[in-house]
Amino acid sequence: MGEKNVAVAGATGAVGTEMLKVLEQRNFPVKNIKMLASKRSVGKKLTFRGEDIPVEELSDDSFSGIDIALFSAGASRSKEFASSAVEAGAVVVDNSSAFRLNDDVPLVVPEINAERVKDHRGIIANPNCSTIIAVVVVYPLHKAAQIKRMVVSTYQAVSGTGAAAMAELDQQSRAYFANEPIQKEVYPHQIAFNLLPHIGDFEENGYTSEEMKMRNEGRKIMEDDSIEVSCTTIRVPVFRAHSEAINLELAKDLSPDQARQVLADAPGVKVVDDPENNVYPMPLDATGQDDVLAGRIRRDDSVEHGLDLWVSGDQLLKGAALNAVQIAELLL
Amino acid sequence: MGEKNVAVAGATGAVGTEMLKVLEQRNFPVKNIKMLASKRSVGKKLTFRGEDIPVEELSDDSFSGIDIALFSAGASRSKEFASSAVEAGAVVVDNSSAFRLNDDVPLVVPEINAERVKDHRGIIANPNCSTIIAVVVVYPLHKAAQIKRMVVSTYQAVSGTGAAAMAELDQQSRAYFANEPIQKEVYPHQIAFNLLPHIGDFEENGYTSEEMKMRNEGRKIMEDDSIEVSCTTIRVPVFRAHSEAINLELAKDLSPDQARQVLADAPGVKVVDDPENNVYPMPLDATGQDDVLAGRIRRDDSVEHGLDLWVSGDQLLKGAALNAVQIAELLL
Repeated sequence: MGEKNVAVAGATGAVGTEMLKVLEQRNFPVKNIKMLASKRSVGKKLTFRGEDIPVEELSDDSFSGIDIALFSAGASRSKEFASSAVEAGAVVVDNSSAFRLNDDVPLVVPEINAERVKDHRGIIANPNCSTIIAVVVVYPLHKAAQIKRMVVSTYQAVSGTGAAAMAELDQQSRAYFANEPIQKEVYPHQIAFNLLPHIGDFEENGYTSEEMKMRNEGRKIMEDDSIEVSCTTIRVPVFRAHSEAINLELAKDLSPDQARQVLADAPGVKVVDDPENNVYPMPLDATGQDDVLAGRIRRDDSVEHGLDLWVSGDQLLKGAALNAVQIAELLL
Repeated sequence: MGEKNVAVAGATGAVGTEMLKVLEQRNFPVKNIKMLASKRSVGKKLTFRGEDIPVEELSDDSFSGIDIALFSAGASRSKEFASSAVEAGAVVVDNSSAFRLNDDVPLVVPEINAERVKDHRGIIANPNCSTIIAVVVVYPLHKAAQIKRMVVSTYQAVSGTGAAAMAELDQQSRAYFANEPIQKEVYPHQIAFNLLPHIGDFEENGYTSEEMKMRNEGRKIMEDDSIEVSCTTIRVPVFRAHSEAINLELAKDLSPDQARQVLADAPGVKVVDDPENNVYPMPLDATGQDDVLAGRIRRDDSVEHGLDLWVSGDQLLKGAALNAVQIAELLL
């Protein structure tokens, strides 16, 4: 388990910045680190372990000597540059949607299917943020009682869109109070004090690409195509933690107490479920936490073996950077 | 259809204020209007049709000569004073939860069950806001294809808690930007840039009272106890329109196009469903509108005859004041 040469592609973005922090905090054995971003960011410096490291332009020549390349620069950049990294001998952990559903690319949430990492042919995909946050919680319940169908409504933070969206929520909210015009650059509509039922692109079936990820990536990670999923994804004026209302139809009975016990024993999950004392998952509390918070666990009598729950998880951590670094740790 | 003497109990509140505006805008035939509120508000004046009218203290003696009493002063005030209004000869339209499930109290959404108004024995109940906004949209679909089960996740504005909550969202957001401490008075946790999975009181089954209203009031209004409902209600940092992700399991097939046609013909509903052009319901657009906006209509293949939709409606208008005044109009 020697030290590794690591490259972070998209190092200046919301997720890239978080990846650097997570690598530091988890004492990832970094020999050298390369900060890669678009030409626009060249000239900037990023700090890692107290050292200022200049940002280099992401190119096909960026990966010589690199052992692990963490990509979070968007799907088109991953498609363009991941193969150069693999050819240079690096293993790519890709946070974009580019390769997630490829049969020869493992899609990994370490708490669920860590063993899939060994099947990689150069690329391992990091799942969609709202999918990770859901499956970390529902997979243990699936093992206990088999999910037949899940209906998920998401409440997604602007961090999922990136740093510019976080700035847009900030600026629009300030403009609202200053009675200034609301500027819209990232989203087609105002996000401050509003909700957008629009994440990703609209597909022919009327669902968005983000909504279909919950089904398609969820099935691949949990390795069970029999799980039926319907999802509605909504952007909410919250900065960096996603929340989800999850309705499960199970194959056999699982009481709320049993579900709480299963989740109390599950890695990556923290049960936060004492509503009498106003204790339940909230995005503000999930912010900065590695664990996904799960609560409001209750029996749904509207269907046989129904169970409802509510989860919140940090989109930039477990939803993106933390999960990617956890995958990289499996490579050591 | 002569003019009526009207009393508004809770006239200074968020809903009461809106009731006065709606009475004006719809040219309700008001002979005289009485502004009733708690002792605290005595001394204030409220404007109706350009006239400043002093606020009087709500008491058992408030209703002499009153034909119609619109109550929106909370369930405990309704329980305390509605009988005095009825004894004085008024018909009470009550916006609180006090009498909604009483067998001898009609629970009315005029677009759905206007004819129930005639069964009243002095009190007609106005349903819960998130329930009204859901049933106005799903009832026409129920008539077309029979709802077997609905799973609803709500995204509820702070106006549902009242004027003080609207001020709290405003103040907390300003404090956030001013780096000042966040004051919490109305809600147990910060609502600015956060979500609260807590509306109403927690019941023994783990659902909140607000969540159970969707089932219990929904069934009473639609007059069908066979409809299964599970609901998760979430408070979001939005000022005054509620939104809801609604997943329906129908008894027979209804295509998205058929559903759109049914809703295009439905009173109180406006179909806003052109996602390719970024057109879908949003709370900002629903604000100030009488109609509930319905969109994101799509087939849910995760269950037989499944249908998904997304709605937004003004909580203070159709969710409260408008529906109450529409009930009063049925009394003319």
